[in-house]
Amino acid sequence: MKQVRLGIAGLGTVAQGVLSIIATNGDKIRARSGVELKVTRVASRTLRPEVDLLGADFSQDLSDLIADDVDIVLELIGGEEVAKNLIETALDADKPVVTANKAVIASFGNELLTSNANVPLKFEAAVAGAIPIIQAIQDSLICNDFQQVVGIINGTCNYILTAMEELDQPFATALNNAQELGYAEADPTFDIEGVDAAHKLTILAGLAFDTPFELDHVYVEGITKITAQDIEYAAELGYRIKHVGIAKLAGDGVDKGVEARVHPALIPSNALLANVNDVANAVVVRSDAAGQTLFSGPGAGGMATASSVLGDVVALARSEARVSSDSRTKTRYIDIGEVVCSNYLRIPVRDEPGVFAQVANTMSEHDISIEAAIQKEPIEGSAFVDIVIVTHAITESVMERAVATLREKLGEREASQGDISRIRIETLD
Amino acid sequence: MKQVRLGIAGLGTVAQGVLSIIATNGDKIRARSGVELKVTRVASRTLRPEVDLLGADFSQDLSDLIADDVDIVLELIGGEEVAKNLIETALDADKPVVTANKAVIASFGNELLTSNANVPLKFEAAVAGAIPIIQAIQDSLICNDFQQVVGIINGTCNYILTAMEELDQPFATALNNAQELGYAEADPTFDIEGVDAAHKLTILAGLAFDTPFELDHVYVEGITKITAQDIEYAAELGYRIKHVGIAKLAGDGVDKGVEARVHPALIPSNALLANVNDVANAVVVRSDAAGQTLFSGPGAGGMATASSVLGDVVALARSEARVSSDSRTKTRYIDIGEVVCSNYLRIPVRDEPGVFAQVANTMSEHDISIEAAIQKEPIEGSAFVDIVIVTHAITESVMERAVATLREKLGEREASQGDISRIRIETLD
Repeated sequence: MKQVRLGIAGLGTVAQGVLSIIATNGDKIRARSGVELKVTRVASRTLRPEVDLLGADFSQDLSDLIADDVDIVLELIGGEEVAKNLIETALDADKPVVTANKAVIASFGNELLTSNANVPLKFEAAVAGAIPIIQAIQDSLICNDFQQVVGIINGTCNYILTAMEELDQPFATALNNAQELGYAEADPTFDIEGVDAAHKLTILAGLAFDTPFELDHVYVEGITKITAQDIEYAAELGYRIKHVGIAKLAGDGVDKGVEARVHPALIPSNALLANVNDVANAVVVRSDAAGQTLFSGPGAGGMATASSVLGDVVALARSEARVSSDSRTKTRYIDIGEVVCSNYLRIPVRDEPGVFAQVANTMSEHDISIEAAIQKEPIEGSAFVDIVIVTHAITESVMERAVATLREKLGEREASQGDISRIRIETLD
Repeated sequence: MKQVRLGIAGLGTVAQGVLSIIATNGDKIRARSGVELKVTRVASRTLRPEVDLLGADFSQDLSDLIADDVDIVLELIGGEEVAKNLIETALDADKPVVTANKAVIASFGNELLTSNANVPLKFEAAVAGAIPIIQAIQDSLICNDFQQVVGIINGTCNYILTAMEELDQPFATALNNAQELGYAEADPTFDIEGVDAAHKLTILAGLAFDTPFELDHVYVEGITKITAQDIEYAAELGYRIKHVGIAKLAGDGVDKGVEARVHPALIPSNALLANVNDVANAVVVRSDAAGQTLFSGPGAGGMATASSVLGDVVALARSEARVSSDSRTKTRYIDIGEVVCSNYLRIPVRDEPGVFAQVANTMSEHDISIEAAIQKEPIEGSAFVDIVIVTHAITESVMERAVATLREKLGEREASQGDISRIRIETLD
């Protein structure tokens, strides 16, 4: 029997989940793994007398965790600077660290993972909560060459889009309900603008493509511009709209690189990923040997996240230190302008002769071929209609130029109402 | 850099997949893990001069694998007795073993896993091909108390049921196509009667519920009795029919035990599991901390299976020997008669007054309550109609008695045609 002494930083929902699991399942964990988990220290700025610390010493000073009676430090405070300093200090003191902090890993993971290469830093809980996607990429599928990773990795966005589609709620109502249910923060910017998803995608892209984490190279769009019409038209075309993070290998030879982007996308309705609803997360991985694998589950929540934190803890307790990431090769990141995608366009136009032709001509002038087009019936009493177009695959920069031209031309003849909506299509091929 | 020397038993599709992955991705694996995979020996009864052995010595004698230049033995020959002997010999000689052989683990896993407890035996590839479900249960989710494991774990059955539903093919045609596509054996009994799924479920049940593998305690039904009508009626009721393996904890106190059963089941159409189609496999795990997680991907195929085999190999190379399963507790297996399920019944009856009432009365006499009932219109020119019933949850033995009574009563008045079809409903709750 091997006893492992834990020092926990933080007393929020994840830390409480960790304590609760150890209290409830400690015996089971010991029987399965031969590891006895013992919490010796807890440090948190906030006192929470209602939480059972399982006999651990409590302190409000994080540096008290770097002690002789702590074998592994659990960083569960969130935020960036303080968390980063704690992880750094722990690694310097030869204490392995487990963290659930996606922002710290996305922003400082490269230095932290190499700062003391003999001391492991694990972060399964940082991406997609309870889903063991990091272990899948780093362990189970380690012998694969990865081609693509596509994930629904923000539960707030997925909840809002699901509610808009299934309950016919406008964006604002869905967001409001998400906030009431605790699925969105009072200030939801971080989630609905895609920043949280970008942190997670940064980590997935770096791991799958053996390259450093580079948050700055992730293209980011949120879901605030998605309308009920877009969801309806997408359904007619056989798609559902999901907010996804995509990392894929593109290009050949010297042009080869990683695309990393976070944005709403049309996903074929019959794909499993399109049927991952509400706050659930899911990641689809495509690789040369294993083919297409999908991992889904709760992407957040104290207990679900704690499940992954403790999975890491037991793995550390059972195994030797991991090989550092020093040997990773480096693949360049591809600029969003070079990305090639099919697109969904919704163009609100004045219902008059020649407008449809003008739209079609503009596409043609930019060498964009149209796969499908629907001209909707005008709404009773309105002079405007929606033209919906699905393009064949085209380079992002060309598509952007075509949309700009379209805006200008339709503006000149006062033929447009509202802005053109463009959403990328991901067929997962 | 750590070199690991592999001895491979077998030269079938999985062994060829292993050789091919090492040839293609060997450098990548080395950079990621610090482990260099070197195949030193290959043994197979069949000579395959077309396969590149990557410089390994070839022998037709399996015992040549137990040599000083082999660190890990890969058992990829299939079958039971010969494979079991090889694994035993290797473990006795202190060689860790990786196998893709579900039959050997289901039947002899208990003794093999404890025969030489310091030498690891790994078998990720034995269940669900490329899907890392063993690692999920044993590592990532190790701190969870498992409540239920439900999986589509036989690709042949899933292909046939999908084709019956989506292509309107009768069972025989779908089976024929599966055979032509290489998804079913010339003698398909093993797959379509559920034996293969039972092997896999035995392993999942033992691991999730900390209890020995007991193939004999798995209740097994295949898919040969499923008709096009059943699939159609199920769709009307909001379900799809899938062939699943189910292991769940049921009962309380001394009655507590594991249900382990393999059979066709109605799954709610909007559940992710219901949308896993064709030859894909998927496993849904419900546990106390992580909640409901789902893992899907290719369940068979040389490359996909080899991906899991090599994941195990690298894990062995990186970590110390695993703790043996000696410390596992033992949970009893529950007899199928004690299982509680909702049921779908299709009862072909003569279209005459009183028959429906007789069916309803029989259910009522056995205290079975009806959740939904549909009396179908008779087919033009036929004197028979289908009564379709969905029951509330009821004990298996009671349901069986009710169906027997029904058969007898309807038989007496010559009111039935064809047998009553009963399919269990799994809502995944």
